[in-house]
This record gives sequence, C-alpha cells and structure tokens, in this order.
Amino acid sequence: MKLATVRGADGATHAARLEDSEAVLLPFADVGHLLANSGRWPTEAGETGERRAIEEVTFCPVVPAPSKIFCVGLNYLRHIQEQGRPVPDHPSLFAKFPEAITGPYDDIALPGTSTSVDWEAELVVVIGRTVRDAGPQGAADAIAGFTTGNDVSMRDWQHRTTQWLQGKTWGSSSPVGPVLVTTDEIGSARPDLRVSCLVDDQTMQDARTSDLLFDPVHIVSYVSTIITLRPGDLIFTGTPEGVGAARTPPVFLQPGQVVTTRIEGIGEMRNRFVASD
Amino acid sequence: MKLATVRGADGATHAARLEDSEAVLLPFADVGHLLANSGRWPTEAGETGERRAIEEVTFCPVVPAPSKIFCVGLNYLRHIQEQGRPVPDHPSLFAKFPEAITGPYDDIALPGTSTSVDWEAELVVVIGRTVRDAGPQGAADAIAGFTTGNDVSMRDWQHRTTQWLQGKTWGSSSPVGPVLVTTDEIGSARPDLRVSCLVDDQTMQDARTSDLLFDPVHIVSYVSTIITLRPGDLIFTGTPEGVGAARTPPVFLQPGQVVTTRIEGIGEMRNRFVASD
Repeated sequence: MKLATVRGADGATHAARLEDSEAVLLPFADVGHLLANSGRWPTEAGETGERRAIEEVTFCPVVPAPSKIFCVGLNYLRHIQEQGRPVPDHPSLFAKFPEAITGPYDDIALPGTSTSVDWEAELVVVIGRTVRDAGPQGAADAIAGFTTGNDVSMRDWQHRTTQWLQGKTWGSSSPVGPVLVTTDEIGSARPDLRVSCLVDDQTMQDARTSDLLFDPVHIVSYVSTIITLRPGDLIFTGTPEGVGAARTPPVFLQPGQVVTTRIEGIGEMRNRFVASD
Repeated sequence: MKLATVRGADGATHAARLEDSEAVLLPFADVGHLLANSGRWPTEAGETGERRAIEEVTFCPVVPAPSKIFCVGLNYLRHIQEQGRPVPDHPSLFAKFPEAITGPYDDIALPGTSTSVDWEAELVVVIGRTVRDAGPQGAADAIAGFTTGNDVSMRDWQHRTTQWLQGKTWGSSSPVGPVLVTTDEIGSARPDLRVSCLVDDQTMQDARTSDLLFDPVHIVSYVSTIITLRPGDLIFTGTPEGVGAARTPPVFLQPGQVVTTRIEGIGEMRNRFVASD
C-alpha cells in the first residue's frame, strides 16, 4: 500500500491510501494518527472511503508530527570518503525536531543567516509499532514502511561546533514524503532502491540503498536499545555521496532552484528554494 | 511563583502552585498545558484551587512532554578546560527527546550496556511563549522561568561517534524539576545562582550560573533564529566542571548511589540509580 497525508480543499488533513490516480480518504487526521491509533493499521488502511483525484489534494509531510526524528550520518561509504572520515563502528545519530519537516512539494526558505544550504537525499524509515530493545526480527516488524526525505543542511551552522544539530533542524526545512510505501509492497525491510537527488535538471546524487553501512533493520534495533520507538517516528538513514559541500568548488542552493528527491518504488519530492522574506 | 506538575493519589496529574507546604491544584493536566493554554498563564497560575499537602503528592517532570528539549554543551569555562577543548564562539547545541526525561525523585535505571553513566547538574530554561527570531528583550520575555535538570550521560555511548545524542537521550534518564520558579520570583532572566551536584554525600559540582559563557537570554535568542520555540520547551543550559568522566581516575555511577541536583532558589532533586532488570 501507498499511504499519504493529504489536505483537501476544506483545509483539513486526512490519512489517505493512494490507488491509481486517486486518494481514498481514511478516518484519521493523518498517517501518524492512523499508525498510532491501532496495531490494526494495516487493516484500517485498507478500508473504503471517499475518493479524491490526486490533483485536488495537497500532499503534507507523510507523518506531520512524529514524536521523534532520528537521523543517521555517515552511512554510505563514498559519502564517508568525500567527508574524509574513517569508516564508523556505530551509527552516528543526531536529531531533527518535528517542526523541521515540511511537505514534499512545499517551498523552502533559504535562511538569511546561512550561505551554504545543501541537499541530502535519504531513505526514511517510518515506525509502525512501539518497540524497545528489539532484535533483528522485532526491528523488521516495527518498520511500517519507507518514505523519501531530504535532510537539508545549513553547513555553516552545522559546523559552527562539533554538534551538527543547529545546521539540521531549521524550521520547515526538511521535506518528507510524498508517500509511505509499506514494507510488504516494497518487498523487504532492507530494500535495495535507487536514491537520487537533482538540483534543477542536474543529477547530484545517485546511489543504491543496498550500499548503506547500517541497514534499516540494524538502525531500528540500535536506536531501540536507547529509547522506545513509537508509531510514526521517523529515521533518516543517511545520504550518499554527491552533496554540495564536498564538491570542488562547493555548490550551495540559490533562490529559485528546485531540488528533486527521488527513490525508486516510492516516488519523488520537488521543493523550490526561495529567498527569506 | 513556584509551579509543579504533581500526581495525586488518584493517579491523575495536575499543574499546581506551591505555597508553603501545600500544592494548590490548577485546572490543567500539567505545567506544559498551563503554559500552552493561554498567554494568560501568569494569571491562571495564581488562581485558587484545591489544596493538597506536599507529602501527599508525587512530583513529575515539571513539563512532562515538552515539544522540544535543546541542550547546550561546553558552557562553563572550567568544564571546557576539563574537557580539553577550546573556548567556543557559538553554543554547542544537541537534543534530548521528551521520553528521555523523568521525575525529580524517580529511580533511574543504569543501562546494562553502559559502564560509564555520569552526572551533569544544569540550570534549565522553561519557555513561556511562542517565539522566533527574538532579540534580547523578546528572548527574556519568552522565558517563563527556571528549573533544575540533570543531563545524565552515558559517556561510552556519547563518544562512540562525534555526535553526542546517543549518550544523551536514554529513556527516562534525565530528571527535571521539582519546580518551575518564575523569572519574576527568581529576579532575573540571567540569574546568578549556585548550582551543585552531590553523589551520595560527596559534592562533585559546585559553581554559579553567572559563569555561563552563553547566558539564558543569549541561548533563547540564538535557538529562536533556527526554529520556533513554544511554551513548555526546555533548554538545558550546560554543566559546570566536576563531571565523573573528567576525574582522575574517572568515576561513574553505581547501583544504589543517589544523585542530588541542587540550584539555589529553585530546590533540589534526588535520584537513586538502580541496576537494570
């Protein structure tokens, strides 16, 4: 199944199942509520409902208000090499606050105080059940499915100190969506999918998720050792090589540029970057 | 005023105002709801209500479910020196997820997978109004008041990678409370208070908040550049020298030890560390 959070003409948001070119509205305010409401969400998500043409709805972040967003840094070998860092023994975890996410087709404001806004296309895990201290099977079972994210990074702020958070959690900076594709539909909790990022028409990142050092199941198990994961929580799994900061010379986003974040089997997001007011 | 979130014999939590040895119950589920419900919280918090003897209630984290918890690292000069680090130009920010906090007198489980659990007594800012891009006056006005926190740190996990998060956000590891003391009662949005931490009867940290490199008003202004701060959000402002990891030899918490976190004018928390099940 493909699930999304959509906003209709009335301004209200709804969880929806996508079928062909229609959104079937489900009786939940968003996908986060659908996942949280019941361990029966795979059944609930399959119910019938009012249908809307996809052109008539606006896509929101697939989970608009997750309780937690973990991010993994340095998880593709060639990205680690472009950063000049050693291969890690453990996932590098950092956070993003829920207000940092935005919709898959929303404009994103370039902060007036940053001159180095960069892209990071990522496979994002969506948690489907409450889990703590999970082994591999429990971790795989806790994954509802996958979506697309862009861990947009203000590099100057990211590297002001050793801790990356301040470059990673700008309000409404990181698009997530457009759909959650369930694990059964995508075929594996460790999927092998092509992930790419384009700036305007130029391909900047192009890799496969099978190159992840720490795969989604490993990451969910690892994080669940530390804290309870809950339905709707998101984990950005890391970005492959090809970010702007690692280019010679470095390249950063400019007003008017459009970033396309695309993952095979999930879909793509398109976000225009605009000057701040 | 001194405000707290307390649980009565019926198991329900309430926001409360403390007067002498009594808790005056307010019509909000906790201090977070009191702050969020209305810009009129200073008035609402002063209303009359049912009174309970302090001995009859249990103190919860003063804001049990903040939308965001920011933490500042390396914010006292002598702590920076004991870590062997240069004096920073900017606050080092990292995150703690809401489920990482616990009550001011709760037992705290020592994780079976960490052998280096350490203390960090800290002054904690409680946000009282929604604020973004605040200058000094706006930042000061956005501070509802202050409470006490202990940024309990699993040092082995903290230093597995360059990013500290995984040592800082263990479930139910970081006590916050027992009370929010409003800025008017504490006398300043940049208060000069003695902060100390004891392990059993031994004083391990003893400093003054006037030694903060980045004071609470500066930090709130800085963070509000990045993301919107909301009522009930917490900011741990950093810990002074005297942590266990910096001692020769290093000292870490053992089952049965009690950590007392004390700030002049606010009060103290006492948390017993216990072996995991």
